[in-house]
Amino acid sequence: MKTEIRTLVDRWDEIEDISKASQVLEWDQETKMPGGGAEVRGIQLATLAELAHENLVSRDFKHALKGAATTTRLPTRDAAIVREARREHDRAARVPGSLVEEIARAESVGLEMWRKARRTNRWNEFSRQLVTLVRLKRRLADAVGYRDQPYDALLDMYEPDATVAQLDPLFEGLKEVTIPLVQKIARARRRPDRRILTRKYPQEGQLRFVRMVLDAMGFDFDAGRLDLSTHPFCSGFAVGDVRLTTRVNERDLRPCTFGSIHEAGHGLYEQGFDPRLSRTPLGHAISLGVHESQSRLWENIVGRSRPFWAHFLPRLKRVFPEQLKGVKLADFHFAVNEVTPSFIRVEADEVTYNLHIVLRYELEKGLFDGSIRPEKLPQEWNARMKSLLGITPGNDSEGVLQDIHWAMGLYGYFPTYSLGNLYSAQIWKRARRDLPDLEDRIRKGDLVTLRDWLRRKIHRPGRTYPVAELIRRATGRKPSPKDFQEYVETKYGELYGL
Amino acid sequence: MKTEIRTLVDRWDEIEDISKASQVLEWDQETKMPGGGAEVRGIQLATLAELAHENLVSRDFKHALKGAATTTRLPTRDAAIVREARREHDRAARVPGSLVEEIARAESVGLEMWRKARRTNRWNEFSRQLVTLVRLKRRLADAVGYRDQPYDALLDMYEPDATVAQLDPLFEGLKEVTIPLVQKIARARRRPDRRILTRKYPQEGQLRFVRMVLDAMGFDFDAGRLDLSTHPFCSGFAVGDVRLTTRVNERDLRPCTFGSIHEAGHGLYEQGFDPRLSRTPLGHAISLGVHESQSRLWENIVGRSRPFWAHFLPRLKRVFPEQLKGVKLADFHFAVNEVTPSFIRVEADEVTYNLHIVLRYELEKGLFDGSIRPEKLPQEWNARMKSLLGITPGNDSEGVLQDIHWAMGLYGYFPTYSLGNLYSAQIWKRARRDLPDLEDRIRKGDLVTLRDWLRRKIHRPGRTYPVAELIRRATGRKPSPKDFQEYVETKYGELYGL
Repeated sequence: MKTEIRTLVDRWDEIEDISKASQVLEWDQETKMPGGGAEVRGIQLATLAELAHENLVSRDFKHALKGAATTTRLPTRDAAIVREARREHDRAARVPGSLVEEIARAESVGLEMWRKARRTNRWNEFSRQLVTLVRLKRRLADAVGYRDQPYDALLDMYEPDATVAQLDPLFEGLKEVTIPLVQKIARARRRPDRRILTRKYPQEGQLRFVRMVLDAMGFDFDAGRLDLSTHPFCSGFAVGDVRLTTRVNERDLRPCTFGSIHEAGHGLYEQGFDPRLSRTPLGHAISLGVHESQSRLWENIVGRSRPFWAHFLPRLKRVFPEQLKGVKLADFHFAVNEVTPSFIRVEADEVTYNLHIVLRYELEKGLFDGSIRPEKLPQEWNARMKSLLGITPGNDSEGVLQDIHWAMGLYGYFPTYSLGNLYSAQIWKRARRDLPDLEDRIRKGDLVTLRDWLRRKIHRPGRTYPVAELIRRATGRKPSPKDFQEYVETKYGELYGL
Repeated sequence: MKTEIRTLVDRWDEIEDISKASQVLEWDQETKMPGGGAEVRGIQLATLAELAHENLVSRDFKHALKGAATTTRLPTRDAAIVREARREHDRAARVPGSLVEEIARAESVGLEMWRKARRTNRWNEFSRQLVTLVRLKRRLADAVGYRDQPYDALLDMYEPDATVAQLDPLFEGLKEVTIPLVQKIARARRRPDRRILTRKYPQEGQLRFVRMVLDAMGFDFDAGRLDLSTHPFCSGFAVGDVRLTTRVNERDLRPCTFGSIHEAGHGLYEQGFDPRLSRTPLGHAISLGVHESQSRLWENIVGRSRPFWAHFLPRLKRVFPEQLKGVKLADFHFAVNEVTPSFIRVEADEVTYNLHIVLRYELEKGLFDGSIRPEKLPQEWNARMKSLLGITPGNDSEGVLQDIHWAMGLYGYFPTYSLGNLYSAQIWKRARRDLPDLEDRIRKGDLVTLRDWLRRKIHRPGRTYPVAELIRRATGRKPSPKDFQEYVETKYGELYGL
């Protein structure tokens, strides 16, 4: 490694160590911290965030970056280090400190107002703050810069290089196939029996079962943990230390089972970065969409597949012999793949889920290009809910107020969820081509072959390649909605006998 | 608060937030972290330590300190803030960065060599590094400065203002009473039956019982936790977030029971600082000796007392009815107070424990005033073991190599353990005078009255008063070995019928 690159990475290290310390504090906050620790913990996290920011925009960092950037004929990896370090630095440096503070305050107020609005089911409690947040995020977009439209600058924070111009056709493709499919399913005669899943399933057994599944997936418990938290998440402090959380509903097998597999999909990505990229700008997920592709691939494409349950249903029956007595594989498989329009995104099935995202994407676009006035959001929400899913929320709490994202200032974040679904199907198709016996292996409980393929193709490079290039190198094609369309049409056509 | 003091505290806050973040990472390391996280965690901790140090010796901090120090007519608390901030700053600023690094490296090597030496029972594997460490610590003492002798500068790091001149008479007093007492006990006819304690006691029951005890002590579980770790410790991230750990031996009730009570004694101190001192230089233990006085008071004076077990033995019997069937209070009480010379400090009883400390204190003094050559340490150790406790270790692993402290560069640290014992008896005596029905209350399970008294007298002030003043304010007298002498002579005279 050239001296200039080494110097840059050394500067980066300190920032990364501070950020990872913050992550440890956040993990502890969600999983272990007693209530009495909340106030001071918040202050400690703010101090660490400020320190990391100061370092990233410091003269020293800028100097190191300049030195590295003027170095010529760099190998791929070193060039990527410079690219990603510059990306982080530029974005931080372009935003005035006063705006960062103003946004942090507005988000904190927004969160409080949103909580109240959702509890009391009164949009007006939150709408004024949403106007403020959109205005501030618009200023943020202007500060960061964009080529085409302000919303692109926001998208880029979570999905580098994503633009409206690129997302529009992907999401149109999603709508084209999903809306008629949902309608056909609604008219189908076959119906799954979801009661299989909603018997009494004690927590201890559910956790024992998912640990078995995670083990089979190759999640390394010597380099990670699984704990409980209110909202499941995954946090990687190092490739050797990746924390997953899950939650348990004793009257429903799904949250713990599919939540744990989902987070373990994220966890395998975090455990899979090339260790040589540790503590460089490259030892991270390239985008939230790619991160989500890993969680959704494991949760849905593998974890809701028939071969998967051919292996695991007998094992689940050993844990819950009474509850699952006489349950047939076909019925269990159908039950975990029930498709039905519903109001709440996080509870939506694999097919309707993307329509929830399309709805949010269209509203966010409208908010930032000025075609939708924030005050009109509930009406806009409900109208789209009707046209996309054919249902109308009974109130704003199960409509426009359901998600925490807008209150937290996360605009441009939702689309990454659907990008994850699209990428996952495209990656899966290629994996099956490269590994012709993949489904047979899964049927025998061998999930590690798939993990290893993903590790080589997706995990190891970290941020070495931009998203589009990563997907192209892994699958041979640029990102497209085609494979996802084909995947859902085939799978649900068979399940519902369409 | 005057502006200058406010400015100083603001500067301090950032340092404190970083240090507390380090503590969270360390707690996680000992209790939750998977093995794979160790390497990167070490690096993260080193980065945070460096950041805190840089801030403490920065021009900004020095400037703020100067501004505050020249402010006149400060109230007690503000004057104490300046005193403690200056203390931390001066000590950090006087030591050249190169020496700090050299010591850190030597400690890291020392630890590795000590581990090997202890495992293979070969003093020579470690002795050379001990010479290096003593030499470096001597340079550290010179850099920090001292009035009388170099060892004083080391003592002062753990017990502010402690000096050889002050400790010598305290420790002579300890020896005077302890050596003959141990001899008398050895000749006593009465013998406790320790087998009561070494039956099979499953972990779950032991933990359930100590949680009950900690609850009764007034340890606030909404502001703290109890977890398992190899070596028990207490760590306070904030008054609202204090973490205790314990360990369980299923064939011995003592480690978990008394270890948990010990750590909860520390924990009550950390939960008890006046919340207004939070994130100031005063919201901390004034010394390790005072910290240890709280843990030893609860562990030994309360936790090994007859009134305590009058209340808790019936409750312990409910947890372990088979194991404790027919066990009488007097016998149980005697068993947990067995006195017998032994080689290992951490397993020593309340009486012989201090002789283990006296031994180490005399050796450390000798190492730093040049009267003991490091190579001769094993012989010096064994000779003192013989004269103080009447026994000779079979090998160096149960002798001079048993403790991790010298390998970690902790010289001047051991005396604080015995200071804790002395302070605890002095504090206890005064508490009984102030609360005449204290033992009756304990007999009824009321431990909170004592906690509240300690909170007012010892916990709340944090670092507001120097050690000697704190003890004088709480007990009416300066620190002395007298009350401890009286306490052990009375207690063990009765138990052993001397």
